Amino acid sequence: MIIGLDPIHVERIVKNALAEDIGSGDITTALTVPAIARVDATIVSRSEGILAGVDVARAAFAIVDSRIMFEAVLEDGSHLEPGSLIANVQGGAAGILTGERVALNFLQRMCGIATLTAKYVERVSHTKAKIVDTRKTTPGLRVLEKYAVAVGGGQNHRFGLYDGILIKDNHVASVGSVRAAINAARENAPHTLRIEVEVDSLDQLAEAIECEADAVLLDNFSPETLRKAVEMAAGRVILEASGGVNLENVAEIAETGVDLISVGALTHSAPALDISLEFGGNHISS
Amino acid sequence: MIIGLDPIHVERIVKNALAEDIGSGDITTALTVPAIARVDATIVSRSEGILAGVDVARAAFAIVDSRIMFEAVLEDGSHLEPGSLIANVQGGAAGILTGERVALNFLQRMCGIATLTAKYVERVSHTKAKIVDTRKTTPGLRVLEKYAVAVGGGQNHRFGLYDGILIKDNHVASVGSVRAAINAARENAPHTLRIEVEVDSLDQLAEAIECEADAVLLDNFSPETLRKAVEMAAGRVILEASGGVNLENVAEIAETGVDLISVGALTHSAPALDISLEFGGNHISS
Amino acid sequence: MIIGLDPIHVERIVKNALAEDIGSGDITTALTVPAIARVDATIVSRSEGILAGVDVARAAFAIVDSRIMFEAVLEDGSHLEPGSLIANVQGGAAGILTGERVALNFLQRMCGIATLTAKYVERVSHTKAKIVDTRKTTPGLRVLEKYAVAVGGGQNHRFGLYDGILIKDNHVASVGSVRAAINAARENAPHTLRIEVEVDSLDQLAEAIECEADAVLLDNFSPETLRKAVEMAAGRVILEASGGVNLENVAEIAETGVDLISVGALTHSAPALDISLEFGGNHISS
Amino acid sequence: MIIGLDPIHVERIVKNALAEDIGSGDITTALTVPAIARVDATIVSRSEGILAGVDVARAAFAIVDSRIMFEAVLEDGSHLEPGSLIANVQGGAAGILTGERVALNFLQRMCGIATLTAKYVERVSHTKAKIVDTRKTTPGLRVLEKYAVAVGGGQNHRFGLYDGILIKDNHVASVGSVRAAINAARENAPHTLRIEVEVDSLDQLAEAIECEADAVLLDNFSPETLRKAVEMAAGRVILEASGGVNLENVAEIAETGVDLISVGALTHSAPALDISLEFGGNHISS
Amino acid sequence: MIIGLDPIHVERIVKNALAEDIGSGDITTALTVPAIARVDATIVSRSEGILAGVDVARAAFAIVDSRIMFEAVLEDGSHLEPGSLIANVQGGAAGILTGERVALNFLQRMCGIATLTAKYVERVSHTKAKIVDTRKTTPGLRVLEKYAVAVGGGQNHRFGLYDGILIKDNHVASVGSVRAAINAARENAPHTLRIEVEVDSLDQLAEAIECEADAVLLDNFSPETLRKAVEMAAGRVILEASGGVNLENVAEIAETGVDLISVGALTHSAPALDISLEFGGNHISS
Amino acid sequence: MIIGLDPIHVERIVKNALAEDIGSGDITTALTVPAIARVDATIVSRSEGILAGVDVARAAFAIVDSRIMFEAVLEDGSHLEPGSLIANVQGGAAGILTGERVALNFLQRMCGIATLTAKYVERVSHTKAKIVDTRKTTPGLRVLEKYAVAVGGGQNHRFGLYDGILIKDNHVASVGSVRAAINAARENAPHTLRIEVEVDSLDQLAEAIECEADAVLLDNFSPETLRKAVEMAAGRVILEASGGVNLENVAEIAETGVDLISVGALTHSAPALDISLEFGGNHISS
Repeated sequence: MIIGLDPIHVERIVKNALAEDIGSGDITTALTVPAIARVDATIVSRSEGILAGVDVARAAFAIVDSRIMFEAVLEDGSHLEPGSLIANVQGGAAGILTGERVALNFLQRMCGIATLTAKYVERVSHTKAKIVDTRKTTPGLRVLEKYAVAVGGGQNHRFGLYDGILIKDNHVASVGSVRAAINAARENAPHTLRIEVEVDSLDQLAEAIECEADAVLLDNFSPETLRKAVEMAAGRVILEASGGVNLENVAEIAETGVDLISVGALTHSAPALDISLEFGGNHISS
Repeated sequence: MIIGLDPIHVERIVKNALAEDIGSGDITTALTVPAIARVDATIVSRSEGILAGVDVARAAFAIVDSRIMFEAVLEDGSHLEPGSLIANVQGGAAGILTGERVALNFLQRMCGIATLTAKYVERVSHTKAKIVDTRKTTPGLRVLEKYAVAVGGGQNHRFGLYDGILIKDNHVASVGSVRAAINAARENAPHTLRIEVEVDSLDQLAEAIECEADAVLLDNFSPETLRKAVEMAAGRVILEASGGVNLENVAEIAETGVDLISVGALTHSAPALDISLEFGGNHISS
Repeated sequence: MIIGLDPIHVERIVKNALAEDIGSGDITTALTVPAIARVDATIVSRSEGILAGVDVARAAFAIVDSRIMFEAVLEDGSHLEPGSLIANVQGGAAGILTGERVALNFLQRMCGIATLTAKYVERVSHTKAKIVDTRKTTPGLRVLEKYAVAVGGGQNHRFGLYDGILIKDNHVASVGSVRAAINAARENAPHTLRIEVEVDSLDQLAEAIECEADAVLLDNFSPETLRKAVEMAAGRVILEASGGVNLENVAEIAETGVDLISVGALTHSAPALDISLEFGGNHISS
Repeated sequence: MIIGLDPIHVERIVKNALAEDIGSGDITTALTVPAIARVDATIVSRSEGILAGVDVARAAFAIVDSRIMFEAVLEDGSHLEPGSLIANVQGGAAGILTGERVALNFLQRMCGIATLTAKYVERVSHTKAKIVDTRKTTPGLRVLEKYAVAVGGGQNHRFGLYDGILIKDNHVASVGSVRAAINAARENAPHTLRIEVEVDSLDQLAEAIECEADAVLLDNFSPETLRKAVEMAAGRVILEASGGVNLENVAEIAETGVDLISVGALTHSAPALDISLEFGGNHISS
Repeated sequence: MIIGLDPIHVERIVKNALAEDIGSGDITTALTVPAIARVDATIVSRSEGILAGVDVARAAFAIVDSRIMFEAVLEDGSHLEPGSLIANVQGGAAGILTGERVALNFLQRMCGIATLTAKYVERVSHTKAKIVDTRKTTPGLRVLEKYAVAVGGGQNHRFGLYDGILIKDNHVASVGSVRAAINAARENAPHTLRIEVEVDSLDQLAEAIECEADAVLLDNFSPETLRKAVEMAAGRVILEASGGVNLENVAEIAETGVDLISVGALTHSAPALDISLEFGGNHISS
Repeated sequence: MIIGLDPIHVERIVKNALAEDIGSGDITTALTVPAIARVDATIVSRSEGILAGVDVARAAFAIVDSRIMFEAVLEDGSHLEPGSLIANVQGGAAGILTGERVALNFLQRMCGIATLTAKYVERVSHTKAKIVDTRKTTPGLRVLEKYAVAVGGGQNHRFGLYDGILIKDNHVASVGSVRAAINAARENAPHTLRIEVEVDSLDQLAEAIECEADAVLLDNFSPETLRKAVEMAAGRVILEASGGVNLENVAEIAETGVDLISVGALTHSAPALDISLEFGGNHISS
């Protein structure tokens, strides 16, 4: 199950994007498209991947012109192939042309993230490891991007500095030791939050386990060291591997027995999926 | 020369990003870092690329805690290598930890875009062709992303629907013909804007030239057809190649003699550059 | 054809105006008008002019009370005479009273601008010259005011600093010469924008033509000098006369053969048109 | 004494205006003006009038570039003649050019209002009548415009629907009679507010006086009828003349003995004052 | 009669509250509640009091999910007993769970204020004194809280610094004397506002009456001194008792003959009323 | 240790509160206080309690007039007695008068909450139980109110729906059983969050323990049942008592051995502390 998108949030973010693109007016459309022109358009995938963001695209057209009909043919999580029909969009040509780019910009990014996530998830599907995201997201779009990760089969890490305790190396440096940091956190932490700590050695891991951390982020551990960490932890803490993960090495990392593998690239380096809006065409429905 | 970043815009966008990340509070830092702790930190590149976004990173720390000292060692446009020292950041440890991720999220994205742009620009440097961006940008970050393209040596296309006339295939479809669209646009267009039209055949190009369009976007033309287009245009219109451009084929496209090559991937698929903030380390200064 | 009003923009600007006027509440209406009172009201012109802003007025009532029925009898661009019925407004008396002033404030200003523009346009209708607006608009209302200019038959100049290149005297002063400024601009300007430069002498005009500027703003030229400028340009550049234009001299200026005449007064000094909302009256329908 | 401008309000309104004008960037300045260019500029009046809005102009430059030095030579309320030096502005040429139009747009409008108000005030200076403004202001700028009225010697009427009780003809129509309206208002009105009622006949005035209204707005009364109203009121209520007031008839209206004369034209039809920013010039200091 | 709640204002304040509570998503509901689950819920009072805020609660659910049906059974001002059914809420379980707390937080506070106000009003019902509120309200919620006071039978004092003149002790201290302050205020005050002045002795009251203040706030006067003040005023000024008022002494204060008694506790210290949302229950309908 | 207040958040919330109070201008101060008047003022407690919110008060004055000097004499968490000097405020009288009420409104509320929290904490100090807050906070002020709880010695529960999993009775009702709800949550919950579930019987508690919930909220359990629950849990889950807690029964509840006691009254019903700003007085410094 996925934390759905809050409509207030979607409306605000889409309005902002439309204002950015439309500015003082869509001058080309105003100059060339008759106010009465109506079209039947389709949103179609041009590549293979996972669909995410249909409701965001819908909101873009609804805000530009509330009379545009947007009928989703596929729902988030569907597999896309080149030619897959995602949605039908009918109504005034002017509004559809004005909203097109913003709708596609959201879709192409969210599908890109879901698609890349799904690839990572697939590579580790023979293990118990879960793929999780990071806070390395596009400023302003975190909720949408983390939603896309979830659509792609990933699991969400904390959404910000406010909903999870993750004591990183620089925190440890500021307070002096892993032990001091964990103890300080436990003293006053809300009881609803677990305590996770980043370590860069097995010694620090031992210290974290001794202090009863709930989870440990193993930063840039080699597969061999990860395996030792799993052995050392023996199920007493959740283990998250992080750093230098890519599609080539993720399976090997997962096979060490860690619980979670966090991948910044899911959100900071996912290439956009190629999706287009076409006027009046025929497309296969997958 | 580059259209610089408007500080009002930067402040608004960075405040928004900080609010997104901090939410109700940086709980880990509050729980573990003593209010009086001070640190000397550095922002360091871990890969090769082009620097962009120093002033955005500076703004992030300044907004979190106005007493943090941010000294840029390199300026935007500088070449980065693994280990390059980008900036020194000194002050309260709590504020630096709270602002770190937002500052890096902007930097890694903007550097990623500048770096990818520079690669495209390098590939066509033996031709007269210029690399231009598109409107396929991250919603909410367009001004920053187009700035990063310019830092990387690219040229900006229009910023939105409001500052350029680009009659696309769907506009042509709505009004009936290339000719009708250009004439309608010329009738009422502000005199400050040129008229560009997208065509998908040499016949349409001929029509556009006849109607005295100022520029023509050649959509998904093969190199051979591009060459014929250049010949046909004979300098009477600006020619922009677009569609399916990648690092492998961009040189061949440029060598056809087109004036501009637009590349959506500059902004929608540039991988982030790896940049980190480190506490108290020593780093080479490039 | 006119660049229409973006509904997101209109909603934001009208909500802001209503908040300004209503503040903590419409106390008079709350104290005196029964919640159940309903009225049939009319919006009527009391003077002669051109109608502009009907959709803005409609938005004002819709935001105050979505159940108010607003039926436009005339559309933007219609000729108004004293007594012309513009719209019927029916619904709860309280909401209509609360929204009245804001609706009329927008209408009276937009109609005032359209009306003044139409007068200028009429004076030059025997020439090829077009009347264009400037950036001397009311802060916050530029899009509405430029729309009203277009409704009145004028043509829009650039909307802001972002959608047109206009090298003014102070830019020339900063960079040294007309030539240097034009060359610098051409080097990096987006290809979608023309380059216009302000000159204050025929010598500077010659320099601008030589540097292949696209358009030249002739600042405060006398009719005789304008005529010489038209001769010198010989159609190679667009010529815009500017400065000291009024209803008395605009025809003489237009007859010199310039292409455009920009008039700041269209937006900064147009007197409001007298329009009122009346309860239950009978009015002529023009 | 004048209700000064709240700096929070000024900052918000000026930021909004700058965002409107700058949009995605001041492209001309970016293309032509070297980042290191510095200038000494002056803000100079080109016509006769009353100065208002110096602090708003100051804010515009401060927001664009906090290092710009803005030295006001004259203060609000000063008499201006053609050539009067209003302020010196020194600093980076780019920032001054970017902020110029917004600063001048506020100044020209506020000075225009102060100047027109001063003309009305002068015409009635031999009487006890005060000139007051109305709610017929530019949406979004009411506080600035009412401030300009006060600078011009006028007195402010209520600022919105929230800070004064003014029972207008349409309120009376909704509730049935002047008497019913006044009684309803008195029943629940905050004790800090007076009760004013609009009447269109001497009979209604008598009714208002009998019901102990605090003030009465006499709508479109002829001078003779106004004189009878003054006689009938005998000082028991404040009398405000309204409707059809212009510079030609305001003295005659004032001489009837009314207390207040409200003039919508002060804010809805004041022509802008001609004010310019000049680079490096010499100007008389009045 | 009560100054109703402006829907623009309510929408803005409720959206803000929902954003505060929902943040990046209602994670519990997303994890546990099936998207298709529907419920019949009721909003029920658990204590005795006065209902206020039904429309605010309605807005909360409408914003979260516009398909939720909210049927108010009681209207603002109704008397509540433990078990009173306030409203039926039907629709998607997820949306109702997400909006529940925000809706109740508004209701419990507004009902708390209305309930406490009603207690004060009841204690003085045998006198002519009215209970009025102050500016000691919760930042951001003033309009809602003053509305709740009115629902409870109180009368509103000014809503802010902008809609009433109240010369307090510190103003008097700044200008030198009660007389100087009143005269300065009368000189330039809008004619729509009365002038009220705070005094702390009968001597100052005499001065205020002599200067023809419209109202006088008697700060922390004992009942005996209040009685002398009423005698001294003899109906020439409105008298407002303030300071140290509580449910025990309010009747004695009212019996001195003052016109108004202002009570900060109405808004700053009213305990919340206990109100809950229940799934599928049966409740008495009062 | 306390999660400090984010300055971006404080600035936004205080600006909003000032805008609410100042509106179109502080008319009394404008009319009576000379622009040059300066004062030495003090913020003084008039009752006993705990100080919270000094930085918020400081921000209020800084935003109104950045030249006002605000020197905190006491810091948050200090014990206050009647007469305790909290801060010195020096500068322009006008700005201090304009900011006074907003500064005090924040202080009186935050101190009220800290003071009430401290009373609860004191009552249970002989036990291991911690006092925690709820989401029953004032809309818009949650971060400030939870900060005040922490200053008073309480511990924060989750800040919103986004940073904690708390399966309440209505969630259980929607999904069918405690077991189903816990299992659904565990399946997809971020690993950074614990899982808490509300139960209303010992049977449900047993179910929750069996499903390995991390924490259990015991809703409206009697002290005896709480004691049984503690015994049953035997340290395997965190136990939170909730419902019907007051100063009279909190010690008895704490003595049952529960870990946490949540008290909605901390934020929804804390009476304001009496704090005032005085001009030029002498006060004891505690």
